[in-house]
Amino acid sequence: MLFRRSLRIDAGDLDELVYGTAILASGGGGDPYIGQLILKQALQKYGPAKLLDPVRVHDKALVLVVGAIGASTIFLERFPSLDALAGAVTEMESRLGRKADALVAAEAGGLNAILPIALGLRLGRPIIDADGMGRAFPEGHMMTYGIYGGRMAPLIIADDKLNTVVIEADDNYKTEQLGRSMVERMGNSAMAATYPMTGKFFKSVAIRNTITLSRDIGRAALTARREKRDPNAALIKFFSAMHKRPRFAETLFTGKIVDVLSKTGGGFVRGAITLENEDRRDHCIVEIQNENIIVRIGQRTIALVPDIITILEHETAEPITTENLQYGQRVNVFGLAAPELLRTPKALKIVGPRAFGIDCDYQPIEALAAA
Amino acid sequence: MLFRRSLRIDAGDLDELVYGTAILASGGGGDPYIGQLILKQALQKYGPAKLLDPVRVHDKALVLVVGAIGASTIFLERFPSLDALAGAVTEMESRLGRKADALVAAEAGGLNAILPIALGLRLGRPIIDADGMGRAFPEGHMMTYGIYGGRMAPLIIADDKLNTVVIEADDNYKTEQLGRSMVERMGNSAMAATYPMTGKFFKSVAIRNTITLSRDIGRAALTARREKRDPNAALIKFFSAMHKRPRFAETLFTGKIVDVLSKTGGGFVRGAITLENEDRRDHCIVEIQNENIIVRIGQRTIALVPDIITILEHETAEPITTENLQYGQRVNVFGLAAPELLRTPKALKIVGPRAFGIDCDYQPIEALAAA
Repeated sequence: MLFRRSLRIDAGDLDELVYGTAILASGGGGDPYIGQLILKQALQKYGPAKLLDPVRVHDKALVLVVGAIGASTIFLERFPSLDALAGAVTEMESRLGRKADALVAAEAGGLNAILPIALGLRLGRPIIDADGMGRAFPEGHMMTYGIYGGRMAPLIIADDKLNTVVIEADDNYKTEQLGRSMVERMGNSAMAATYPMTGKFFKSVAIRNTITLSRDIGRAALTARREKRDPNAALIKFFSAMHKRPRFAETLFTGKIVDVLSKTGGGFVRGAITLENEDRRDHCIVEIQNENIIVRIGQRTIALVPDIITILEHETAEPITTENLQYGQRVNVFGLAAPELLRTPKALKIVGPRAFGIDCDYQPIEALAAA
Repeated sequence: MLFRRSLRIDAGDLDELVYGTAILASGGGGDPYIGQLILKQALQKYGPAKLLDPVRVHDKALVLVVGAIGASTIFLERFPSLDALAGAVTEMESRLGRKADALVAAEAGGLNAILPIALGLRLGRPIIDADGMGRAFPEGHMMTYGIYGGRMAPLIIADDKLNTVVIEADDNYKTEQLGRSMVERMGNSAMAATYPMTGKFFKSVAIRNTITLSRDIGRAALTARREKRDPNAALIKFFSAMHKRPRFAETLFTGKIVDVLSKTGGGFVRGAITLENEDRRDHCIVEIQNENIIVRIGQRTIALVPDIITILEHETAEPITTENLQYGQRVNVFGLAAPELLRTPKALKIVGPRAFGIDCDYQPIEALAAA
């Protein structure tokens, strides 16, 4: 029954949805509860959100990617503005001379998984049950929309004072770079519309049904929690059933955080945490570059970006974002296979280990576990 | 006969024109000879440039300001690209849904006085004999177009790889700020189209006939130089005849540079030079913020921004831009009254001494000389 998706999100789904986006965020994506607040208000005002199944998007539809861009910690102080996001869409539409037929998320993890739903409700536009990462990544050119040939430009950036900037660079990486420097100037918090694309192209590259997936992830874990079952085990069971084979989702390590190293700069958080297990014999290191990107136990690598690595509080399986990791927390390191679209040679060039400065080839989490 | 303007620029006018723009640049505007090279090529290819007298611009015409934006020293290495400038215009036109009827310069000093002529030749568009500063200033919101109510946005920025950025901020200062940070990211050298405006508005705020003025300035000085007369005296005589009263143009000081202080950062050059006269009794200090902004002899202030302050080589009256000032040069400090449109209370708020961090009220150069 897990795969019968209702494609409808109402207030009762909020906790589950937000929980699921935090699992998929791989430690990044910022505080998911900002998105929850925004969506809660939108659902109260406009009623339930009906999601559009990606397979039902018309070939000739104009699809737009919408979301927040900036430093996730800033959004706690400068609340993401739906006005600004609507402004970015309007600007894109006037530029293209055409209304968008549907809106879609940049990423499945964190705030950006949720903002498009609130905006769709507000603008009365269809919201597609999909995204371009199946997780969270720090940069816009890392979406499957771009990896498989889509153009990020024009990238429209708008801030809450309704300043707008349109960027048309010759490649996605450059567009991302220029956009990022603009957002820094705007106070590290802005809204964006990007990747205008046809429904046909969109369907060939999107990571599908990730909004309802998040809701279902949350449902599995939070139901277990409520029923006093182990939510960690419920998560593993949920993903195993989904993938129909083992080791696609695993608890990679359980232990106490004994060291946290973190450096913020240039719009990135870099760092590492060290975990120690109960008998203090094994040490696990999780390296961080906005998201969790590699897990090592001793000399052995056991998970690598783009596979999803999320730190969960040991008892409750509550996801902890990278900025909230603290000395002394007892945690599980949860690993989850990335969507197949992130595991192709084309994708690994842009989101594989070497793209994050890790000097080794990608190996799938299930292969590392089997070794 | 000085005021009969031919409104035609051909290869024979080049030296005079470039000399004149260097006089009006007040030490800024970068190396004028880059512009000379570009214009020379354009004149060879397309023939003489016919300038449009501003009084003849149609009320309903669409006028665009075009020019380079960036660090003047970079343009020596990365040659300004007419392709990029044409790209910025095309982008603006597609945005406005209308072709520009005429192009005009941002400033009368340096490279930006000359680039629009080359672009107009290339695109076959009328070039107006006018600008928005009557001199050079470092920032886009300092044009009379903006001072008197025009909107800098949309500001289109294009680089030589034809990346384009469109900025729509809520005020000109913000537009300038965002644009500047974008240009820094683009390697401190880019081309811009901005201040789309009607002919009617343009005529009410432009500094008129500054291209032919530059050519006439050059003609006066270079003719004297050729005829072994004193070019400094020829300059003073030229401006006195033009203004029909004395002290609007003066040699404020003659001496040797005995100290050069200079700091580059944040897109600005700040510094000061100290001059000593022959008998070493008087010291003159010229403070620099991209342009020369204040002249003091001892405790006495004798010229203040927005009046034009240009350092000339003593013998030849060759203008020396701020980045080329060196210890030991024998120079004249040449002062020239700013256009009236820069001397109103409205203008002085944006281009007066306090806008450059000088803690005193503006006093006209002729009043300071009379005191």
